[in-house]
Amino acid sequence: MMKKIVILGAGYAGVRTAKTLEKLLDPKQATVTLVNKHNYHQFLTEICEPAAGASPYDDVRLPLLHLLKERRTALVKGVAQRIDLDAKRVYLDQGFVDYDILVVALGSEAEYYDIPGLAQHALNLRSLNNARLVRTHVENMFARAKNEPERAGELLTFVIGGAGFTGVEMAGELADAVPELCRKYDVDSAQVKLICLEASHQVLPGLDPQLGQIARQVLEGKGVQLRLQTPLAEVQPEAVRLRDGSTIATHTLIWTGGVRGHSLVAQAGLPTKGRGRAVVNQFLQAPGHREVFVAGDTAWIEDPATGQVLPATAQLAIQQGELVAQNVAALVRGEDLRPYRPKQVAVLVSLGRDDAVGRVGNLTLHGRYARVIKRLVTWRYLHNLGGVRLLLQHRLHAGHLRTAPRG
Amino acid sequence: MMKKIVILGAGYAGVRTAKTLEKLLDPKQATVTLVNKHNYHQFLTEICEPAAGASPYDDVRLPLLHLLKERRTALVKGVAQRIDLDAKRVYLDQGFVDYDILVVALGSEAEYYDIPGLAQHALNLRSLNNARLVRTHVENMFARAKNEPERAGELLTFVIGGAGFTGVEMAGELADAVPELCRKYDVDSAQVKLICLEASHQVLPGLDPQLGQIARQVLEGKGVQLRLQTPLAEVQPEAVRLRDGSTIATHTLIWTGGVRGHSLVAQAGLPTKGRGRAVVNQFLQAPGHREVFVAGDTAWIEDPATGQVLPATAQLAIQQGELVAQNVAALVRGEDLRPYRPKQVAVLVSLGRDDAVGRVGNLTLHGRYARVIKRLVTWRYLHNLGGVRLLLQHRLHAGHLRTAPRG
Repeated sequence: MMKKIVILGAGYAGVRTAKTLEKLLDPKQATVTLVNKHNYHQFLTEICEPAAGASPYDDVRLPLLHLLKERRTALVKGVAQRIDLDAKRVYLDQGFVDYDILVVALGSEAEYYDIPGLAQHALNLRSLNNARLVRTHVENMFARAKNEPERAGELLTFVIGGAGFTGVEMAGELADAVPELCRKYDVDSAQVKLICLEASHQVLPGLDPQLGQIARQVLEGKGVQLRLQTPLAEVQPEAVRLRDGSTIATHTLIWTGGVRGHSLVAQAGLPTKGRGRAVVNQFLQAPGHREVFVAGDTAWIEDPATGQVLPATAQLAIQQGELVAQNVAALVRGEDLRPYRPKQVAVLVSLGRDDAVGRVGNLTLHGRYARVIKRLVTWRYLHNLGGVRLLLQHRLHAGHLRTAPRG
Repeated sequence: MMKKIVILGAGYAGVRTAKTLEKLLDPKQATVTLVNKHNYHQFLTEICEPAAGASPYDDVRLPLLHLLKERRTALVKGVAQRIDLDAKRVYLDQGFVDYDILVVALGSEAEYYDIPGLAQHALNLRSLNNARLVRTHVENMFARAKNEPERAGELLTFVIGGAGFTGVEMAGELADAVPELCRKYDVDSAQVKLICLEASHQVLPGLDPQLGQIARQVLEGKGVQLRLQTPLAEVQPEAVRLRDGSTIATHTLIWTGGVRGHSLVAQAGLPTKGRGRAVVNQFLQAPGHREVFVAGDTAWIEDPATGQVLPATAQLAIQQGELVAQNVAALVRGEDLRPYRPKQVAVLVSLGRDDAVGRVGNLTLHGRYARVIKRLVTWRYLHNLGGVRLLLQHRLHAGHLRTAPRG
């Protein structure tokens, strides 16, 4: 009996599951279908670069057709709308797919904590489409400032909500983009204000405070105003109101302050914890549904060594995708499943185009070489996915080897 | 006695006046001061290209310092706020300048015909800053369409108000930009709508109907919907209401449908005709003020041969700037002034990147070679201003010789 395996989501976890299954499974044993909203895989860890104009949009995506073997993995472009666990069927925006084994790797969604106006008026950094909007919006603000000089102050104030991974990276990239934007639009850089708001008392909350300290110093050196313990109260189209009663006049709030599990998880009736993330057993199966695996940001996984919940990172999503593929293959073959043992190898946060901070093992990295290492991590990721061919193809395609300046 | 000559505006007329005065006047006879809002001269006849993303912003401007001789023409960056004809003084946003002879070459302003919402919500094409805003706004609409697919229809509807020179050129450039924009933002080109509204019964009103017919066919071939006899009733942020009662859902109205003389002319008490343009005598002097010359779009000049008022074109503005410089020099030397005899040599309207239509003498031009001629006109203009050196400098600087694609 051919098993039907369906993977929802072609992010870091879903793609790794599909790639690994191509190796582990005999095509006679099972069919694999990967369902994704787009026909490309996005590198969300790099998303702040194109969002700030530091790299072309195509740098952060790869066509799924380049990644997967046509005869091994079927691609369905579609948006999952509902999972019927009893019927073992996933309804899409157009049609449906049936499964014997399901891998839910839908990633996370933005969490808005019910702050009024936040969902309506904030920009996000959760997809390539979001990044494009951030970039065109920011450039539009610069152009508007020249046409409405009396409003230049508010138009040229850019607020980032959250000083976690993405908030810090966006602040760094945006700060580095300012000189170029000012030249392109004849704006005096003294008019531009970058503000990063963080509700907690720390930059990069959850990481070693030393890394947060370094990030803070670097960003402040780049002209970013970092305001800790400053939660939002309300977001309006042309202002951000803070819990302390003050208001920032701005047309731009880029929200990076929170994530939650994909809404489909709870909607399907799977038990969740901590903002809609799916509870899983040690084999990454949903409780009571041994045919449903969950991997990546949308899974609630506690580190068995520390008892702490794992953060939503690409590194862990890739590990989980790999393990899930192994367990799916084992399930198909009737073999024993393997428990997940998370390995948190490294953490690297970019601080603009030529700086980064992070930790590899016990080593704290900081500076230009840390940024180079962060870039190498992406290259290694590409290499792992598709070897030297894919690496070169993507880099050539995306224009990293172009020498001409970007327009 | 050194005469103080002040030129207001560094457009086609003002720059030509200043350049010609550099040749005609001995520095011991007079000082020349050119007052302009920006430190650059803009080529407004080319403005639709950067507005549609077809060329870099710097293509349509030249630093005034490159154009003028430092020791002959003093540059004042400032905005004229008020002309006191009795005191012979021009008040600027910062400070003032006194004159013995004044050249008003302030160009035209947009005319909104009191259509509700038009001035508030429309984009313009009357400066480089306007062009930048059109471009970032259009790209922002494409990016938004991908983030708000349910609103893609209205976001991707672009309306141009007016099918005169600028409206037709903008429609052509925008139509040619659509494929690239669709590729950049993953938009299906079938979703994009370009609509050009014209109140009169003719495309390119005022010109030979044959040219309008050709323009219409070419633009319709590029996918532009041309709607004649369709005046606006009201403009809202997200809709354009027409006089016929219908509504177009759109966030983009680019207004090219009317110009009027610069408001300072009437404000100074100079007699005006036909929407605020300054009446002048045959020597281009304001009546009763032989020390005040008016040149370019803001002057109301009737062709002595036909009795018809001259259109607001760069070609005529340049002629007038030349004649005004000669008359200013004659006035300084106590010589006789020369009457203005307009020569309407050629009319050329671009229809996108590779097409144009026009008339040179009795010859109707159309097609790719007409577009090349239109480009040569700009080159000749640059050459006339500053010789081969300026021509090369600008073209190299602006990147026309770059071979790499633009980002």
